[in-house]
Amino acid sequence: MSSTRLLSPLINRNSNNGYNSLRRLGLCFGLEKQRIENFRFLCSSASAMTEASTKAEALSFETLNPNIKVMEYAVRGPLVIRAGEIEKELEKGVKKPFKEVIRANIGDCHAMGQKPITFIRQMLALVAYPELLHDSRFPEDVKQRVRTVLEGCKGGSVGSYTDSPGIEVIRRHVAEYIQRRDGHPSNWEDIVLGSGASDAIKNVIKLLICHIDCKEPGVMIPIPQYPLYSATLAEFGIRQIGYYLDESKNWGLDINELQRAVDDARKKCHPRAIVVINPGNPTGQVLTRQNIEDIIKFAYNEQLFMLADEVYQHNVYAKGSAFFSFKKVMMEMGEPYNKMELASFMSSSKGYMGECGLRGGYVEVVNMNPMVKAMYLKAISAMLCPTVLGQIVMDAVVNPPREDEPSYELYMKEKSAVLDSLKLRAEMVVKTFNTFEGYSCNPVQGAMYAFPQVKLPPGAIRAAAKADQSPDVFYAFELLENTGICIVPGSGFGQREGTFHFRTTILPQPEKLKEMLEKFQAFHQKFINKYKN
Amino acid sequence: MSSTRLLSPLINRNSNNGYNSLRRLGLCFGLEKQRIENFRFLCSSASAMTEASTKAEALSFETLNPNIKVMEYAVRGPLVIRAGEIEKELEKGVKKPFKEVIRANIGDCHAMGQKPITFIRQMLALVAYPELLHDSRFPEDVKQRVRTVLEGCKGGSVGSYTDSPGIEVIRRHVAEYIQRRDGHPSNWEDIVLGSGASDAIKNVIKLLICHIDCKEPGVMIPIPQYPLYSATLAEFGIRQIGYYLDESKNWGLDINELQRAVDDARKKCHPRAIVVINPGNPTGQVLTRQNIEDIIKFAYNEQLFMLADEVYQHNVYAKGSAFFSFKKVMMEMGEPYNKMELASFMSSSKGYMGECGLRGGYVEVVNMNPMVKAMYLKAISAMLCPTVLGQIVMDAVVNPPREDEPSYELYMKEKSAVLDSLKLRAEMVVKTFNTFEGYSCNPVQGAMYAFPQVKLPPGAIRAAAKADQSPDVFYAFELLENTGICIVPGSGFGQREGTFHFRTTILPQPEKLKEMLEKFQAFHQKFINKYKN
Repeated sequence: MSSTRLLSPLINRNSNNGYNSLRRLGLCFGLEKQRIENFRFLCSSASAMTEASTKAEALSFETLNPNIKVMEYAVRGPLVIRAGEIEKELEKGVKKPFKEVIRANIGDCHAMGQKPITFIRQMLALVAYPELLHDSRFPEDVKQRVRTVLEGCKGGSVGSYTDSPGIEVIRRHVAEYIQRRDGHPSNWEDIVLGSGASDAIKNVIKLLICHIDCKEPGVMIPIPQYPLYSATLAEFGIRQIGYYLDESKNWGLDINELQRAVDDARKKCHPRAIVVINPGNPTGQVLTRQNIEDIIKFAYNEQLFMLADEVYQHNVYAKGSAFFSFKKVMMEMGEPYNKMELASFMSSSKGYMGECGLRGGYVEVVNMNPMVKAMYLKAISAMLCPTVLGQIVMDAVVNPPREDEPSYELYMKEKSAVLDSLKLRAEMVVKTFNTFEGYSCNPVQGAMYAFPQVKLPPGAIRAAAKADQSPDVFYAFELLENTGICIVPGSGFGQREGTFHFRTTILPQPEKLKEMLEKFQAFHQKFINKYKN
Repeated sequence: MSSTRLLSPLINRNSNNGYNSLRRLGLCFGLEKQRIENFRFLCSSASAMTEASTKAEALSFETLNPNIKVMEYAVRGPLVIRAGEIEKELEKGVKKPFKEVIRANIGDCHAMGQKPITFIRQMLALVAYPELLHDSRFPEDVKQRVRTVLEGCKGGSVGSYTDSPGIEVIRRHVAEYIQRRDGHPSNWEDIVLGSGASDAIKNVIKLLICHIDCKEPGVMIPIPQYPLYSATLAEFGIRQIGYYLDESKNWGLDINELQRAVDDARKKCHPRAIVVINPGNPTGQVLTRQNIEDIIKFAYNEQLFMLADEVYQHNVYAKGSAFFSFKKVMMEMGEPYNKMELASFMSSSKGYMGECGLRGGYVEVVNMNPMVKAMYLKAISAMLCPTVLGQIVMDAVVNPPREDEPSYELYMKEKSAVLDSLKLRAEMVVKTFNTFEGYSCNPVQGAMYAFPQVKLPPGAIRAAAKADQSPDVFYAFELLENTGICIVPGSGFGQREGTFHFRTTILPQPEKLKEMLEKFQAFHQKFINKYKN
């Protein structure tokens, strides 16, 4: 039982000030003051709050699920809400020192001008409107795939429900893709499609909610991490066991640190699983094969279920870096490691395709206890099925045009254009940040983000304290208000005490990115000068 | 705290027989024997179970989330799994007394031969592949809507994330639709789009997980009910408070029964909300305005949050029946009722469109405490956004062609064809069932299902007991194995002790439905004769 679940005795339906209540709850559970302050952005107005809490309500702030109260999702937090407000102000003609908001807070490729892959979109148009199968402007390989997928849909329509783990033929295509990627067999029945990787991740983590020997469950996650994990653990009342990535070793995983984290945690909870994000989000590292082997051995020794977040497997840029899946490494390590339980997640939102809005994703569950798997499949069945069009995007990703097919040339051209450009942008961002005073930024070997460390001057620390904000949040708000650039402060992902970071995507198109970095530099220099003492 | 959450002391990682363990757990928590037996269908093989439980596992059946173990979703249960197996056997040439499985278990319109609405599919094709905006074969009203929606997508692409509650312009269209429907204002900021109504329903129910005065939360649901509710409550550890619908009054809601249910429940839990499904699933009734008023007064007196599942609002067939939304009735009742908290759910899966696979849905949250609403929006933000194409289907549903637009004629023709045919089928099913020996079937006033009561003869009750099945499950399995017709036994929805029902959809196309009913009748007569003593 997480401490938040034991809130009930504190709850008082007669409390007439929800905001103060929130403060109290926040303080109870060690939330930073900042988070409480941020809350104000989420409410439409203080008067609405007061009004709301005076009438008898079935669902008041006091009687709201306490896990929902404490969960956070920084990528869409108060800073991003403020960015939206600024956009509306600009539309209304409010004068600002900039003309537009640059949303570098979220890995949203198409929003930043990346063009869709024609092959994927043609597949979608044809499955949605099969009349177009008779249209000679669409290539035969697209039509062939569309026919295959529609045969797998009941009634030949994408409007019918699929099996809960997805359309069989698409699950088979995913398994074939994994087999080609890893050189090891993959069983299509181990593939479960989801509405995006997030959906699949939550559905697997949910299985772990169970007290063992009266101890609450815990899941190890990297710090810094992608906040889906902290949010999901908070929602599920699972204890977050943070292990720090080693910034001095390009955000690699240090086994001693893993050991420290799990040993500390065992005093308070039952560690059940470890999450590894590779390539890293927000940190952009690509793990070496050796590092992965060490992590697998560690997980084996500690009897941990492995969750490998591998959604950036197509996004590897750095010379000498290569993506190794946990499955491949585990299989090649042989007994007993090749019998370990693993869930590996993939998405159609990232990579070269960047189809975030279409919500395609899958998980491969390896060596899962068959009874557990049966229960898992039962649990997802109540949600019927993941979006069929999302499933079809995933199909297009794992079963792309082959060299002898008509769509191949254009597909390869578009794919390479995106990945080559991302590679250049990854280098540009790192190189530029490393020229800023007080910045140090590890190479972006993969994924879509840079996570530089910023030394903030004493004046900034004081000003932040005065504004009741943590220094990185203060910095990010100043940046937003002065330049329109929206980034996410490091505290949203976690960082070592006393260090300050932020995450920016590398997604603005090259010209825009250049402009953004110039504005950023000018802002930073001013900021440093203003707050240097 | 639900009892299932207190399992931990029972859990023993060294248990070497998961299946027996399951039996024990099942018995502990009063599961029917049937359910435990059914579980065998879910596991690939008994040997796999034994093998799996002998090695050290991070996630074993014993350490699996206990709420997941007890949740059930009958619409996709063992009977449906068996139906899938039979389909594969038929494909392989195994001889059966029938040629195909008729899936009357699930409201999956397109799977049963219903054709998609052209207007909806054209919109989808064009948003996915905007090149087609230049194609003169697509009507201008479709193009106009596509341009509007794409303007609302960041970067003009459906591949970008939207705001977590959905695209603003679509939320506005939904609000306008509600306003036209009810004749009362609807605020677009109260509209939250979801990946299907199921997603929206779970996200709202989740808010209610909170112990109050050390009592666990409870939610009132109808019996019979749609099993998404029982499954969701089980998953969340919320106590299910069943209130029986009155079969003798065409499945209406009897306020005395509501009062009985809530009074009983208050001894054990804190009732927080009431779910009403109108038109009814699985029961097909359409509530009268008076009945809705009474329910609203009851909810007011008991301080309950109202969840109105109104996904079948377009599916009303019976003469004299009309759909009234809870919102409309509540608003017209005036103070204090018009200030009550309500969530009303809608979907693009049902109605005349039947686009189940595309996962479009929305909830209108009325009078929700603004702080609670802020937390709700925060909670959904970690899942980023509902599928954009599902959002766009919802847009097409709430903003259909107007009389002066080019798509209107075809749209109306297709829409009426579906609804008129469903009306005929609703009548045909009820009329036919009422001619069967021992059957009584209320009229299907709305939705897509009939839920007849069947008096089973003593021999059948004994045979079921011998087969370790409940009689309705026994009947449904016999029907499936002998005719290929797949229905869902009443126990999956709940029914009064000692009565037996099943749910069948009215979705097979008319010719097929006629054939199905003939086969059904022949089977039933044989069954009755075989088991009469």
